[in-house]
Amino acid sequence: MSGLYFEDLSVGQSADLTRTVDEKAIQAFAEVSGDHNPVHLDEAFAATTPFKTRIAHGMLSAAYISALIAGKLPGPGAIYIAQTLGFRRPVKIGDEVTVTATITALDPEKARATLATVCTVGGKTVLDGEATIMVPRRPA
Amino acid sequence: MSGLYFEDLSVGQSADLTRTVDEKAIQAFAEVSGDHNPVHLDEAFAATTPFKTRIAHGMLSAAYISALIAGKLPGPGAIYIAQTLGFRRPVKIGDEVTVTATITALDPEKARATLATVCTVGGKTVLDGEATIMVPRRPA
Repeated sequence: MSGLYFEDLSVGQSADLTRTVDEKAIQAFAEVSGDHNPVHLDEAFAATTPFKTRIAHGMLSAAYISALIAGKLPGPGAIYIAQTLGFRRPVKIGDEVTVTATITALDPEKARATLATVCTVGGKTVLDGEATIMVPRRPA
Repeated sequence: MSGLYFEDLSVGQSADLTRTVDEKAIQAFAEVSGDHNPVHLDEAFAATTPFKTRIAHGMLSAAYISALIAGKLPGPGAIYIAQTLGFRRPVKIGDEVTVTATITALDPEKARATLATVCTVGGKTVLDGEATIMVPRRPA
């Protein structure tokens, strides 16, 4: 159950995943986060907002970034150090969110990787940012 | 169902909430995020990691920050622009996480607030960072 080691990584290496934000995901995220903001849950309220319809919790897309890093690049064993998140556009119910993580820098001394993390819907960026990850070294 | 308006805010204003990270929260967050990393879910695997026991998903604490901002300060109507997250210490199953958000800057031209966001367990910082929020102006 180990992911990639620091020695397996190179700049430009990339991974992605896609998740559909359905009704069930919104309800589950509201429950687990405690964020019951009506812009996510109440269509009548959401119609009065600049978004005109319900939108997903921004942190749900951030959770998908975390899942990509923990599951694929670099995978189990990696330790999350930091993440920046810029929320660029709303994600609506039914949207398919594609998360892409691409290694932009490697620090061999600290065994840390920097990844550009981008979420898109229909090719448009909804969230971007940068992850800093500590990656286990290959056992000698 | 409206939160605070930009005109209601002042630097130093603060709000907090506390959540207990229980087994149910970990399972629910794994499900909704798709992050089934064994460090969160498998005690035998987690015992082999530097943490020695299972830890919560870092993004679960980030979700609590989002809930505090969406629910209390400034509350419904606010729009998340950006968030930085520094994961300082692990959160373990059963830990009580207290999230505090404090307004550090206000930009009247853009109606934006900057908040210092800190999560603590037993008085120790587990996550820190900064939120940038667009806040609705009070209707004339």
